[in-house]
Amino acid sequence: MSTAAGERNDADRVLIFDTTLRDGEQSPGISLNRQEKLEIAHQLARLGVDVIEAGFPIASPGDFQSVQAIAQEVEGPVICGLARTSHQDIDAAWNAVRDSGRPRVHTFISTSDIHIEHQLQTTREDVIGQARAAVAHAKQYLDDVEFSPMDASRADVEFTAEVVQVAIDEGAMTINIPDTVGYAMPRELEAFLARLYELVPDLRRVALSVHCHDDLGLAVANSLAGLEAGCRQVECSINGIGARAGNASLEEIAMLLHTREPSVGLWTAIETTEIARTSRLVSRLTGYQVQPNKAIVGRNAFAHESGIHQDGVLKERTTYEIMDPTTVGLRSNSIVLGKHSGRHALSEALREMGFELDGQALNTAFKRFKEIADRKKQVTAMDLEALVTDELREEITGYTLDWFEVDASSLRPPHAKVSVNLPDGSAASGSFTGDGPIDAVFQAINAATGVAAKLSDFTIGAVTEGQDALGEVSIVLEVDGSTGAGQGVSTDIIDAAARAYLRALSVAVARSHAGGAIGLPETI
Amino acid sequence: MSTAAGERNDADRVLIFDTTLRDGEQSPGISLNRQEKLEIAHQLARLGVDVIEAGFPIASPGDFQSVQAIAQEVEGPVICGLARTSHQDIDAAWNAVRDSGRPRVHTFISTSDIHIEHQLQTTREDVIGQARAAVAHAKQYLDDVEFSPMDASRADVEFTAEVVQVAIDEGAMTINIPDTVGYAMPRELEAFLARLYELVPDLRRVALSVHCHDDLGLAVANSLAGLEAGCRQVECSINGIGARAGNASLEEIAMLLHTREPSVGLWTAIETTEIARTSRLVSRLTGYQVQPNKAIVGRNAFAHESGIHQDGVLKERTTYEIMDPTTVGLRSNSIVLGKHSGRHALSEALREMGFELDGQALNTAFKRFKEIADRKKQVTAMDLEALVTDELREEITGYTLDWFEVDASSLRPPHAKVSVNLPDGSAASGSFTGDGPIDAVFQAINAATGVAAKLSDFTIGAVTEGQDALGEVSIVLEVDGSTGAGQGVSTDIIDAAARAYLRALSVAVARSHAGGAIGLPETI
Repeated sequence: MSTAAGERNDADRVLIFDTTLRDGEQSPGISLNRQEKLEIAHQLARLGVDVIEAGFPIASPGDFQSVQAIAQEVEGPVICGLARTSHQDIDAAWNAVRDSGRPRVHTFISTSDIHIEHQLQTTREDVIGQARAAVAHAKQYLDDVEFSPMDASRADVEFTAEVVQVAIDEGAMTINIPDTVGYAMPRELEAFLARLYELVPDLRRVALSVHCHDDLGLAVANSLAGLEAGCRQVECSINGIGARAGNASLEEIAMLLHTREPSVGLWTAIETTEIARTSRLVSRLTGYQVQPNKAIVGRNAFAHESGIHQDGVLKERTTYEIMDPTTVGLRSNSIVLGKHSGRHALSEALREMGFELDGQALNTAFKRFKEIADRKKQVTAMDLEALVTDELREEITGYTLDWFEVDASSLRPPHAKVSVNLPDGSAASGSFTGDGPIDAVFQAINAATGVAAKLSDFTIGAVTEGQDALGEVSIVLEVDGSTGAGQGVSTDIIDAAARAYLRALSVAVARSHAGGAIGLPETI
Repeated sequence: MSTAAGERNDADRVLIFDTTLRDGEQSPGISLNRQEKLEIAHQLARLGVDVIEAGFPIASPGDFQSVQAIAQEVEGPVICGLARTSHQDIDAAWNAVRDSGRPRVHTFISTSDIHIEHQLQTTREDVIGQARAAVAHAKQYLDDVEFSPMDASRADVEFTAEVVQVAIDEGAMTINIPDTVGYAMPRELEAFLARLYELVPDLRRVALSVHCHDDLGLAVANSLAGLEAGCRQVECSINGIGARAGNASLEEIAMLLHTREPSVGLWTAIETTEIARTSRLVSRLTGYQVQPNKAIVGRNAFAHESGIHQDGVLKERTTYEIMDPTTVGLRSNSIVLGKHSGRHALSEALREMGFELDGQALNTAFKRFKEIADRKKQVTAMDLEALVTDELREEITGYTLDWFEVDASSLRPPHAKVSVNLPDGSAASGSFTGDGPIDAVFQAINAATGVAAKLSDFTIGAVTEGQDALGEVSIVLEVDGSTGAGQGVSTDIIDAAARAYLRALSVAVARSHAGGAIGLPETI
């Protein structure tokens, strides 16, 4: 199963186009701020993706600023912004990505009659005109323009071919075929693409791409069918997040091509050992946990419960394992610190993990490390990763936890009292008697801050296993129509929840002052 | 997208073979007791599956009893027991399923050289002999015998054909081709099956089946390829649970065939409106939550976040929805009770949901309903479902919660005091100062009961959305090498955790007295 790297040639190279920050970020309840998007983009660069679709710049000032920050800071991958066909959209996308060394603008319009009629409420002729104008406008700014005929898999292939030909004529360098509603089956998609090649011979001069959704559980298989039909770019996301049932999982496609390279003959530049860590980072910041039986990155993807299987794996790994867990970055890290570990040991461990911390950031990390080490026998690399991503964010001027006290009992309603540090430096306290201890804490925080925040999403996960595991809470809440998300990590679930709530509150309040989204986001 | 039921014919009927209770139950951390397995089996019958693989009877007395109880009680589907090739295995499987009106024994042995050499440590000749003897032995007891050449997708197709021919000669009525390690790709599996048909023309006289694992994200696509190659049985599980990355998801296969019936031309007898409820029941009892972006049953599978998508869905449903959520049983139930609802309203609501409760069971349900209704403004069908599955289990003689008090604070370590009702009717209390409030409660329970239980899995989920949502805790713990699982539901997370812990403890203690597993389970 070793890869024949020596024999690889460029014609078999598959470009990985990651849309975690665009299609993924448009999932309900996901609300990443600029710093979080930057963190994910940096990790995607470490993972070796070829293109990062960083967002939809026209959607809101926050989206624009995030894409711009990624274009300015993240080196290596192409940085791409999405745009509808209007000049306003394309200008926003271009202005957001122009600072990148490798900018791309991705524009799209539907070619299916159902979308043209009900969604766009226009005609096929108008769609051709819009596609032509959009690509031409983008080409004034830059060379690397991608065009997608939205809902192509449900569209008339002849009409789609016409639109694609126009986009190529205007200079589109990548044509991406989306299965927008996750309706296609592998054989169908392959036939559609084969026909498209027949109708548009010029397709062989540009890069062909595929973008699949998982509504019927076929996103990865359809992506593979696309590659077998000749595509050399695949659009996908970490953990498969995205609209509805999500996009094709980047990690599944990467490991499928890696594991089956001798048969499929295609390869990617993905650094597979970064997969597990990228998956954990995205889970943590989005609050979207992967299920235990998720392929590649699920907790049990490499676990062998049944006796005979364990026996087989011990005798000969390949009896039941087609992939080595270390290949995706599991079990490879043996960093363990204890309560007596000092600042130097922490700093070394963090450096080994790719976090360069000093000064105040290292002080903060060390203080939190000591708090955790006092409660946990061993602090592992995964714990450190959670702490660092929890603590070392851009500090939004906002609310932080001073202290809390909770009295929870089956004999009377739970009561919470909290003290919160306010943005102006003062502290305020509040108390509440609620339905459950965590609910009581949230209401007490609302009382202390005087902000009527409304909880919209709440997830709890465990960082590592065992009774003294770190708990991770992700919260999304709403203040005056603006949403904010926050995470908190602690061995104490109430502490983690209070921290997460206060971060989400700070983000939502900052956003509600800055004003909400100005455009309507779409997804292909 | 309506199905052309009038034109359906039997040759296009696909049998759904559910292995949630066998391959699914062998997942790490899943530990279902007899009552829970029965509950799932009854729900699978309501869902309309054709075959329930109820377990691996030789694995332990508990497995045997569960399969037997299902065979005795659950009517409709074929009830199947798994067996290796030994007479002892087959006798156990037969004895477990013989009380069913429609019993099946499923026996298997590997045909791949890697398994024959490293796992079985025997020869191809011996494998042929074992397969022959196993099917012949099972046929002495019953007609409906299924045979699987394990790891077939990595095996020599000529040798596999030889073994399959022997099994058919001995009377096997179903031949199932497993992709045991999730290695196959759709095109490969199709070619393998086409070749198998060529080599074994007798295959057309029996039912051909396919069993796929999701290690590379292709389980559903491979199952579809199998059906397109001629299989008319597909082995799958609810939520796709199973060894490692799990099996093909039943709900994805069922909805793929349903949604694409006009193109694929195959159909199943699945009652799709039972899908969502079956998925929730399996999540709840296994503690395996599905991710928000899981196809068909994920929280967001039918959600439309982006503005234009919502707009499109409002204008014309099919612009962005290829499936109607009510088809899988979502949003169809409008039952809502409030704090003033009486016993009669509760009883009616439960009856509408398929739960026939009276006497003490109804009293218990009503008491718990009132507790919850006091804390929540509205009690929905999903809340009732959670309460009923939480409360109305077979009562294992064991430990129950009397009361608890927890003092949690950021200013000092959390302290818990609990009182537990012991199996002998007396009560005992214990207290503990722990790392977090929930940890402290668990340790206090250990102190009160004098049992040194060790936590091995802990999951928290929300039943419905919003600040006053019911929280659900699933726990797996270990006592003297025996595991037990339990669930608890409450608006108070500590209360839910304590209830779940005490149930799991009761099960584990009962099992440790009964003795552990006597055989080693395997999985195909």
